[in-house]
Amino acid sequence: MFSSSLSHSLLPLLDIAGTAVFAISGALAAARENLNIVTFIFFAAITGVGGGTVRDLLIGAPVIWMHNSTPLAVCVVCGLIIWFTPSRIWPAKAIDWFDGLGIAAYSVFGTAKAIAYGVPLLPSIIMGIVSTCMGGIFRDMLAGVPSIVVRPELYVTAVALSSGSYALLYELGCNIYVATAIAVLAGFGLRALALWKGLGLPHYQR
Amino acid sequence: MFSSSLSHSLLPLLDIAGTAVFAISGALAAARENLNIVTFIFFAAITGVGGGTVRDLLIGAPVIWMHNSTPLAVCVVCGLIIWFTPSRIWPAKAIDWFDGLGIAAYSVFGTAKAIAYGVPLLPSIIMGIVSTCMGGIFRDMLAGVPSIVVRPELYVTAVALSSGSYALLYELGCNIYVATAIAVLAGFGLRALALWKGLGLPHYQR
Amino acid sequence: MFSSSLSHSLLPLLDIAGTAVFAISGALAAARENLNIVTFIFFAAITGVGGGTVRDLLIGAPVIWMHNSTPLAVCVVCGLIIWFTPSRIWPAKAIDWFDGLGIAAYSVFGTAKAIAYGVPLLPSIIMGIVSTCMGGIFRDMLAGVPSIVVRPELYVTAVALSSGSYALLYELGCNIYVATAIAVLAGFGLRALALWKGLGLPHYQR
Repeated sequence: MFSSSLSHSLLPLLDIAGTAVFAISGALAAARENLNIVTFIFFAAITGVGGGTVRDLLIGAPVIWMHNSTPLAVCVVCGLIIWFTPSRIWPAKAIDWFDGLGIAAYSVFGTAKAIAYGVPLLPSIIMGIVSTCMGGIFRDMLAGVPSIVVRPELYVTAVALSSGSYALLYELGCNIYVATAIAVLAGFGLRALALWKGLGLPHYQR
Repeated sequence: MFSSSLSHSLLPLLDIAGTAVFAISGALAAARENLNIVTFIFFAAITGVGGGTVRDLLIGAPVIWMHNSTPLAVCVVCGLIIWFTPSRIWPAKAIDWFDGLGIAAYSVFGTAKAIAYGVPLLPSIIMGIVSTCMGGIFRDMLAGVPSIVVRPELYVTAVALSSGSYALLYELGCNIYVATAIAVLAGFGLRALALWKGLGLPHYQR
Repeated sequence: MFSSSLSHSLLPLLDIAGTAVFAISGALAAARENLNIVTFIFFAAITGVGGGTVRDLLIGAPVIWMHNSTPLAVCVVCGLIIWFTPSRIWPAKAIDWFDGLGIAAYSVFGTAKAIAYGVPLLPSIIMGIVSTCMGGIFRDMLAGVPSIVVRPELYVTAVALSSGSYALLYELGCNIYVATAIAVLAGFGLRALALWKGLGLPHYQR
């Protein structure tokens, strides 16, 4: 089964990569709030593993960081890196692009993991979106800033494009490596257009 | 066993009705924030299935939308309906009354479902309240508006009356259809008085 | 096994003590918002059992208040006590000191419970922190005030010191009663210094 070979080979690595991207964004939020070193690590951990934790609880998978210290260790290290380095070496623009790649990849793998656990397509797509956005939602709630979901930029939409296009291609019988590549590029491409050209969807005005 | 026949006959239908009520209120919150079509659906989904998800995780029931696409499909459709229709056909007053009926029914069935899973009475009452209020709490947190729980209107209290009166009547051996009817009417009646006459409980002033 | 004897003897009692401390702080938050008696109990319940619930879901333990009405009954009673007594008999200073002891004890037992469920050390430390802080985070989010995690005082740090020192002493083979005493005193001592002398860690300024 392709999806299970995916979950046994690539998924752990991409989980860690996504965790690191999210942990860095959590620690940067702590930096904006001028918190101390312990709360840097707390923000890095909640943002890093929060979304994947919700996904795993919902699909009935073991919560990975309960059995394996690697994800949390990655969060601690990311928190310390942000704490000990001057903020000027972390330009917001660079972070946004790095994050755009991270969310596209993480949403595809969230969807693939849900499919591998026997979840139907529509909830699998939502699982990809939730696992990608929930860490950032927790981060923004803790920091008391408006949630990423209500900001005018195209963020959830790019995540949904990655998850949805992967699920569609998977359902159509596409090779999963090809499906992954297309879906990650589609989501990242849309987020890139949002960052670069300010592309957005029309907003509700009625 | 009456409670299990309830959970096999009426519960799924009432779950869907409650989900639709909550999804509509989520999409209307997205409309107030002038979000785009994707975030409309995101708000509809989180509000629609959020409370029931927390309940199911806590009582150890399978999270229904992980195995069945209907609840999420209902949320997507509700989000799209709100997006594509002019807001003037959704008067706030009408929604409030519709919602009042929805919360009374959903809290009774949340309590009945917890009882069916062997949860004792007091936590079953709390499960009815949590499953009914949590979707709205998530919605308000995402939108960054004061939580429904701290608004001065009688909302949680009406929900608690439905859950509590059902549990009490059930414990007293009352027929569950009679208990359901009384409990739904009690909670809806109290919410109706709050909407119509501004009825409230005394607030803490010490 | 010491940790399992701990979990069978002391843990339930300390769980209840921690629940009461948190429930009181939840009800006091409801008092500050001038809520009504039902929402007092709602705040007491969410704050009282919120953190332990997250911990139990994550480590795969049964959620205690689903099988046993005591924790919720404690929350209801605490909510009623705060409602019916004048606020001047609950001086903020006294509550802070009582709470400081409660969080130190609860974080040690959260960590001990996670270890007893076979969770590795680093996630067990995080479980101690999360179970202690999450109830307060829920309380502050519901009330719409800045989360305790971003306030300038040493709070999460004291909790982390309790959890971390217990885990370290446990790993070093220390008797668990000695480890518990040292860890509770360390966390409470640090929180006491924060309350008494305004002690804090340096904040991020780069």
